Amino acid sequence: MQTIQIDIPLPDTQAYQEASIKMMNLAKIPHSLGKLEPLALQIAGMKATATPLLKNKAVVLFAGDHHITKHGLSATGPEVTYIQTKNFAQGGGTINAFSRNAGARFRVVDAGVDYDFAENDGVDDRKIMRGAHDFSQGAAMTREQAIASLQLGIDIAREEYEKGLDIIAAGEMGIGNTTPSSAIVAVMTQTPVEVVTGRGSGVQNSVVDAKIRLIKQGIELNQPNKDDAIDVLSKIGGLEIGAMAGLMLGAASLRVPIVIDGFIAGAAAAIAQGINPNVAHYFIGSHNSAEPGHQIIMKHIGVETYMDWGLCLGEGTGAALFFPILDAATRILSEMNTLADLCINRND
Amino acid sequence: MQTIQIDIPLPDTQAYQEASIKMMNLAKIPHSLGKLEPLALQIAGMKATATPLLKNKAVVLFAGDHHITKHGLSATGPEVTYIQTKNFAQGGGTINAFSRNAGARFRVVDAGVDYDFAENDGVDDRKIMRGAHDFSQGAAMTREQAIASLQLGIDIAREEYEKGLDIIAAGEMGIGNTTPSSAIVAVMTQTPVEVVTGRGSGVQNSVVDAKIRLIKQGIELNQPNKDDAIDVLSKIGGLEIGAMAGLMLGAASLRVPIVIDGFIAGAAAAIAQGINPNVAHYFIGSHNSAEPGHQIIMKHIGVETYMDWGLCLGEGTGAALFFPILDAATRILSEMNTLADLCINRND
Repeated sequence: MQTIQIDIPLPDTQAYQEASIKMMNLAKIPHSLGKLEPLALQIAGMKATATPLLKNKAVVLFAGDHHITKHGLSATGPEVTYIQTKNFAQGGGTINAFSRNAGARFRVVDAGVDYDFAENDGVDDRKIMRGAHDFSQGAAMTREQAIASLQLGIDIAREEYEKGLDIIAAGEMGIGNTTPSSAIVAVMTQTPVEVVTGRGSGVQNSVVDAKIRLIKQGIELNQPNKDDAIDVLSKIGGLEIGAMAGLMLGAASLRVPIVIDGFIAGAAAAIAQGINPNVAHYFIGSHNSAEPGHQIIMKHIGVETYMDWGLCLGEGTGAALFFPILDAATRILSEMNTLADLCINRND
Repeated sequence: MQTIQIDIPLPDTQAYQEASIKMMNLAKIPHSLGKLEPLALQIAGMKATATPLLKNKAVVLFAGDHHITKHGLSATGPEVTYIQTKNFAQGGGTINAFSRNAGARFRVVDAGVDYDFAENDGVDDRKIMRGAHDFSQGAAMTREQAIASLQLGIDIAREEYEKGLDIIAAGEMGIGNTTPSSAIVAVMTQTPVEVVTGRGSGVQNSVVDAKIRLIKQGIELNQPNKDDAIDVLSKIGGLEIGAMAGLMLGAASLRVPIVIDGFIAGAAAAIAQGINPNVAHYFIGSHNSAEPGHQIIMKHIGVETYMDWGLCLGEGTGAALFFPILDAATRILSEMNTLADLCINRND
């Protein structure tokens, strides 16, 4: 059976230990930087250096359509996928503003939008198919297409690494994509569909009920095998979700930390973890999501979240908003003087 | 009786309303940016523009000594004030790393350190006196010295404004300065000293008890008048606390938002608010503090806090860490396309 083979190293324990010792000797009250200190140490382990810096940051946004939207589950029509994808490529979305704010480069990749972008739209055309099929009626895609979406993400991670890359986040645009994400989370975590399905882009209760029925119907029909993440992705997933999972695998194989955005990124992370469990050592949680399945999937992938600004937009916005905080955390290790530098003795 | 006269305009309601309308018409799900949206609108009102940007950011750190430290209330000796002040001036402290991270310029001002800095130490010498007197034995300073510390802060705010200034935070260095801060908070909020007094730099329970006794003794002896903030500052305050309060007054008079750091900044904010209540319209809370009086003083000045990373360092670090988040918030208003720009209709 066709699969994805990718090696992911474990974090470097020696760099982690060196960083821990340095942290205790910095010119500040011990532990006075709270949660930023263990975050900095984790990043030291991932990047295999006691003085990590997050100079080169990237946000890659993958776009894809979902023909399950024909059942009217979303607050906007499916054309908003391509309209917003163009908007992002031209710099006018929230994720653009937040990426610029973080000093992160930003890239839009078409993984499976049901629209032909023009060359001057600025969208990187890596389209695998024109939207995932309606999974309430059959498989979302073939196994080959699922693998192609994963390989696309891996390829993009490698391309970004070539430019210099210290940390990365995967964003997404795909009207309807909370539906496959809820389906993936239900299957991968063995949680009832009702528990992990929410309002997505802000629809009414009656629509949430229809969404739950369709997801259940799709799982029943397709019988995805939770022990084969590629099977899950192909049967009830989406192109942009596969590409996000691939980006995570590719980044982790290169020791690049991955900031996990919201619910859809969580579903992608669960797929990536199903393919190679080591990927989770490179995950850093960021923002809570209003989607009811978010905490469930974060627990499943073993990731803590740190912020709750009430964001519920997707695009990678929660992750991009966390970049400057992580940047600050690593600067503690890399830019501060030690007590010895200042000849201070501590009374304690 | 000598006092400080400074005019502070109210926030601009028209800019606030224009910004609110623009926010509803941006190409995103309504309210999907949670708490960042009201923050952006508040800043629009403060800065009197519907499209505010926080391009020019500054952190000003005021340093001062406290002769009440001779009772041994702190985890380090008083010499750490000047050692760390030099360290900040040379760029090796946490606040330096966080200011660089936020793209904020950083400045160290000696308001009252008990040490003569050399010219090449890089410290701006605006010393009013060599440390506040031990307020358990008498007034911390004269009314004239308190006014001079406030005027110093106002002058620095004006100097920074001349360079271009969109947002500012006041940081501090002063071994022992949680002691006058607890005293100020107890008096200004009429809260028992026991409730607002904590471990400061990390001392033992027995030392906290001694700290409480000294603060009570100082309040009993000096009888500060809570309705005259300058009286409170002069009798139980400190030079750097007065300068921070002055910086807040000066910034607000120029429509510059002020990010309030932790407990000591909160005490300074209460002094500023006692001098001109309008200053509070320009306050933005940032980080929770472990000091037990922090929530009490934030409630008193009417400020919400937004982050809890477990920081307990002071220096302005909590405020500097909030700058990039506020920057992101204002970029929503200033950098995003509207639905009309993209010809999207909303179904809701």
